[in-house]
Amino acid sequence: MPRILVSNDDGIDAPGIDALARAMAGVGTVTVAAPDRQQSAVGHALTVALPLRAVQHARNDGATAWAVSGTPADAVKLAVKTLMPEAPDLVVSGINHGRNAAISLIYSGTVSAATEGTLLGIPSIAFSLDSFALDADFTAAARVARWLAPLVLQRGLPRGVLLNVNIPAIPAEEIRGVRLAPQGHSYWDDTYDSRTDPMGRTYYWLTGRNVLLGPEDADEEMLTRGYITITPVHYRLTDDETLRALESWKLQSEGMPDAEARRVNGG
Amino acid sequence: MPRILVSNDDGIDAPGIDALARAMAGVGTVTVAAPDRQQSAVGHALTVALPLRAVQHARNDGATAWAVSGTPADAVKLAVKTLMPEAPDLVVSGINHGRNAAISLIYSGTVSAATEGTLLGIPSIAFSLDSFALDADFTAAARVARWLAPLVLQRGLPRGVLLNVNIPAIPAEEIRGVRLAPQGHSYWDDTYDSRTDPMGRTYYWLTGRNVLLGPEDADEEMLTRGYITITPVHYRLTDDETLRALESWKLQSEGMPDAEARRVNGG
Repeated sequence: MPRILVSNDDGIDAPGIDALARAMAGVGTVTVAAPDRQQSAVGHALTVALPLRAVQHARNDGATAWAVSGTPADAVKLAVKTLMPEAPDLVVSGINHGRNAAISLIYSGTVSAATEGTLLGIPSIAFSLDSFALDADFTAAARVARWLAPLVLQRGLPRGVLLNVNIPAIPAEEIRGVRLAPQGHSYWDDTYDSRTDPMGRTYYWLTGRNVLLGPEDADEEMLTRGYITITPVHYRLTDDETLRALESWKLQSEGMPDAEARRVNGG
Repeated sequence: MPRILVSNDDGIDAPGIDALARAMAGVGTVTVAAPDRQQSAVGHALTVALPLRAVQHARNDGATAWAVSGTPADAVKLAVKTLMPEAPDLVVSGINHGRNAAISLIYSGTVSAATEGTLLGIPSIAFSLDSFALDADFTAAARVARWLAPLVLQRGLPRGVLLNVNIPAIPAEEIRGVRLAPQGHSYWDDTYDSRTDPMGRTYYWLTGRNVLLGPEDADEEMLTRGYITITPVHYRLTDDETLRALESWKLQSEGMPDAEARRVNGG
């Protein structure tokens, strides 16, 4: 039986991780390791200045589960390195309460858990359901996970690449199909709602909306149109084109840029 | 005068941000907005479940400064959207206490501040000094910032691309030059040191080292050899090669993958 590590960013008590753990039960031996509380929008944070704790978490399906006092990346790293007797064959993260597509990928704790799995050399998949509703139904998303996980276990993924999967929150019969989709371009048109507390001090709430810039076949666009989207994600962050373009800036010099330093310092 | 926003992840009282703010004083009108405390390894975290506060911070050089109760990305976003009367022309982050190269880029709060600037459409640069020493000397790194910032202000950067700059912590005369360098490949060979607290409960400290996998001319390798490195960084995370390769998996289907779902469910 393959070993499957299940994590998330909504915390170990979230309904989405329970649905995912149960979906994986037929696929392999499940270990759950997840933050002990909500950790949304934490990006790829790692706890370095504090020690971590891991407390056994009761589950009625027999899966071993750990509540970790850290981020999604902490939970995955600690589970793989220490909590699990043997490293897992697959890391799955989610099922997130809310989509993770376009630019939101870089803020996503759900994707971060899969990223940490990938960095540890383990095939990894992030699953997100496009709903923030408290009573969101994870059934269709869990079926997608149960369909895709064995395929990834069987075929593997290229080193350094994870799959980011988004599932529409519509009745299963209305889902239009599965699409491979690139990460879309988007930006957050956000503002801060400025308020005054009872002591007269200002505080700020972040509010905003994601503005989509295409292309038409990108993850968020296809999700909105009713498709399950699968996006392979990498972390080779060098912008090669700019690397070449910067050659014309003549930045490379021997020794410290003393002349320039003196000039801008007025020396 | 151009408007320059200075941020970091080591917190507003760190010596590195003071050195950077002073270096920028000759280049433009400086506003400082930074986390009110140490925020290393926070990745691209954003505070969404709590309100933010920003408190004016005294500086003896006349620059406006704000201590923000959040992450580096929070500080930059709040400053650009709310605290500054007009958006800045340049965002600079650092000078970080410690290198940010190879895979560590994705954990870096210093880079995250620059990332948020980039996502807001503002040319952005992250600066890191290769030293964790308490008495680290930021002089050479500040001179690099003062040399590079006007160049970026003058020439701009492609939308969605930031510059990540690392400076060796060696005497200025020993610095071998400036190099454009791709992000290196590396992985963290990390373990958790397991200890027992006075109440008999286990806790875990993360320890590890970054194992470099090349290429020889990559950021971390060149930094180690005594060069200042400049790496253009983007966030187009789609792995195009895998996107094409996944076509052969025949994942795309019309309607939900009912047949597969029934099969794996034993239905």
